[in-house]
Amino acid sequence: MSRRSLAFNFGGFPQDIRIRGPVPPLALILEEFEALSGDRPPTFLLICDEHTLPLARTLSPLGPCCVLASGEANKNWAAVERIIAAAAEAGLGRDSLFIACGGGVVSDLAGFAASVYMRGVRLCNVSTSLLGMVDAALGGKTGFDLLGLKNLAGTFYPARLVYLPVESLRTLPPAEWKSGFAELIKTAVLDGEDFFRLLETIPGGPEALQDPEALEGPEGPALEEAVYRAAAYKGRIVEEDPRETGGRRALLNLGHSFAHALESSAGLGRISHGEAVAWGLARSCELGLALGITGAERAGRITALLKARGYETAAPHPLMGPSFMEALKKDKKNRGGRGVFIVPAAGGAEILREAPAEELLRQIVKVKS
Amino acid sequence: MSRRSLAFNFGGFPQDIRIRGPVPPLALILEEFEALSGDRPPTFLLICDEHTLPLARTLSPLGPCCVLASGEANKNWAAVERIIAAAAEAGLGRDSLFIACGGGVVSDLAGFAASVYMRGVRLCNVSTSLLGMVDAALGGKTGFDLLGLKNLAGTFYPARLVYLPVESLRTLPPAEWKSGFAELIKTAVLDGEDFFRLLETIPGGPEALQDPEALEGPEGPALEEAVYRAAAYKGRIVEEDPRETGGRRALLNLGHSFAHALESSAGLGRISHGEAVAWGLARSCELGLALGITGAERAGRITALLKARGYETAAPHPLMGPSFMEALKKDKKNRGGRGVFIVPAAGGAEILREAPAEELLRQIVKVKS
Repeated sequence: MSRRSLAFNFGGFPQDIRIRGPVPPLALILEEFEALSGDRPPTFLLICDEHTLPLARTLSPLGPCCVLASGEANKNWAAVERIIAAAAEAGLGRDSLFIACGGGVVSDLAGFAASVYMRGVRLCNVSTSLLGMVDAALGGKTGFDLLGLKNLAGTFYPARLVYLPVESLRTLPPAEWKSGFAELIKTAVLDGEDFFRLLETIPGGPEALQDPEALEGPEGPALEEAVYRAAAYKGRIVEEDPRETGGRRALLNLGHSFAHALESSAGLGRISHGEAVAWGLARSCELGLALGITGAERAGRITALLKARGYETAAPHPLMGPSFMEALKKDKKNRGGRGVFIVPAAGGAEILREAPAEELLRQIVKVKS
Repeated sequence: MSRRSLAFNFGGFPQDIRIRGPVPPLALILEEFEALSGDRPPTFLLICDEHTLPLARTLSPLGPCCVLASGEANKNWAAVERIIAAAAEAGLGRDSLFIACGGGVVSDLAGFAASVYMRGVRLCNVSTSLLGMVDAALGGKTGFDLLGLKNLAGTFYPARLVYLPVESLRTLPPAEWKSGFAELIKTAVLDGEDFFRLLETIPGGPEALQDPEALEGPEGPALEEAVYRAAAYKGRIVEEDPRETGGRRALLNLGHSFAHALESSAGLGRISHGEAVAWGLARSCELGLALGITGAERAGRITALLKARGYETAAPHPLMGPSFMEALKKDKKNRGGRGVFIVPAAGGAEILREAPAEELLRQIVKVKS
């Protein structure tokens, strides 16, 4: 497989991204760090979870390794403390390197721990889930859940080096494929026709990796191309506004107002983030249609792709709880009352300056008042 | 009393410092924030400890307030979580303001919490202890103790606005005066003759505030002048090297290698940081003398001032534990083997490029091998 690179600067924090086939060996990571920053980290700590331990051990069979419990339910302070304790135990100093090997939960936790251990050590993300590759591992958001609130505590701390080893997706469970692929579709809607057409040709699961020849894309295997395009899009948007102060960065939340309300009203953990995003994306199409912003053909193609990849696109959603409308309004309030509804538009998407009327939203989600 | 200001930029983080008599009222803080940053924080959280609660309530008699347990023993994650919970409870968003009102423990904890709550909110330090005014509240280091290690977790997050209300020192307990005054002497040694001579004229306790007329300094009361000079010195040094990557910033650690070894060998909490620093400063004078770097008159004046203010300056120190020499060597190792011994020199101090021979160190601290 080909290897491709991206380089960004997030408000003074440079981030280099390598899209490649297999999980990189430790020697390569250290060599690239030395090339990028001028000095080789003298010590490191590998951080993974129960599921990604085998992948982490292909990265480095020996060496200190902190194995976290898997899943969003374990994205808490106890996990951060466990990482810090492992680092202290291994005698890591301020010039050391944390290497996160896993999905979004691992990179969020390891990134937070890296940002506070001795007031900040170096960080490398090796993202092994599709959701991680197209979203969580990129940019600089770290964090964990606290008091029942998602990412209530966090930092902005971009990893210096990020690897997106698409071969590691071969062993990704189907549910995680589904969760990640929805964010991939969302990004393609934002990025434009070429990316969207590419996704229409890729299966939404591990079979996307199984027949490289049939799936050959413009510059390499199609899935690798998709991951590359998603990373490039997110990097460009984050570079414009690293600390999310407003503006175009909100585009990344396409479909997310509906998705958050669905997730929280269903009860956290009852539906995957990606499935909620896919459903939210379908709602955004309907909202855009109703407002005359999204064209009928575009809305139709997006919804058709979501359906073809097995997502629920109809309203009301079977898992929608009675608090849905309240959560939809609260999500808006939490963002300071700024417009957070985004709808597909020609060649990308548009941020609505004003929240749509409640009656219209009720029609879109099929909830009676 | 006069009001004086300092303004610094710590690697892209601006920090304004106001030296004034009384604790500022909330209205003034909000007004100054608006003037500095263009918008007024819509909500705030006051953070103090049991001892500084009365002062915090002169700042704002109403409004959400998180009262922490006092003391270094409570500088832990539980305290950080308590602050975050209070902020969430009060409904604070990303545009809100944390106001820390207290000494170094409060500002370290509140600063850390501010840096991670929703990935960072605005921060104002109102420093009410002498140690806080000349050290902890300035710059940008935040943190808390973990696994028995001081400040193992922390961030670099300078408060936008820092108030040093010297009048609040009237109620500072004698032990805290002693702890803070040692850092004041250390800074005066670094800064030069004018500052040092000023300290020779000020009593080392609350009486420094009780007779403003007798103590009138060049531009205002002498203690205020001393706090101003210490803040100005620390700000200049931190501005050169905000993230402490090496270089001149190590000067601030004058006396600290000996002090850390004394503190840790005595058992944490058995001796105040300032008393340990004073003793370490006396050791640095002897080391500088032995190496021919510190002049005999200068060493004599420094030691005389320390003695006159009631500090223990003789070696061995009565609280020195058997692990002292080991701790002295470990402190060096923790800093990556770089020279951390600093000795007074003409007009300031000098960082030793190489650690002194162990035999010489043993002579200085009067520990046999």
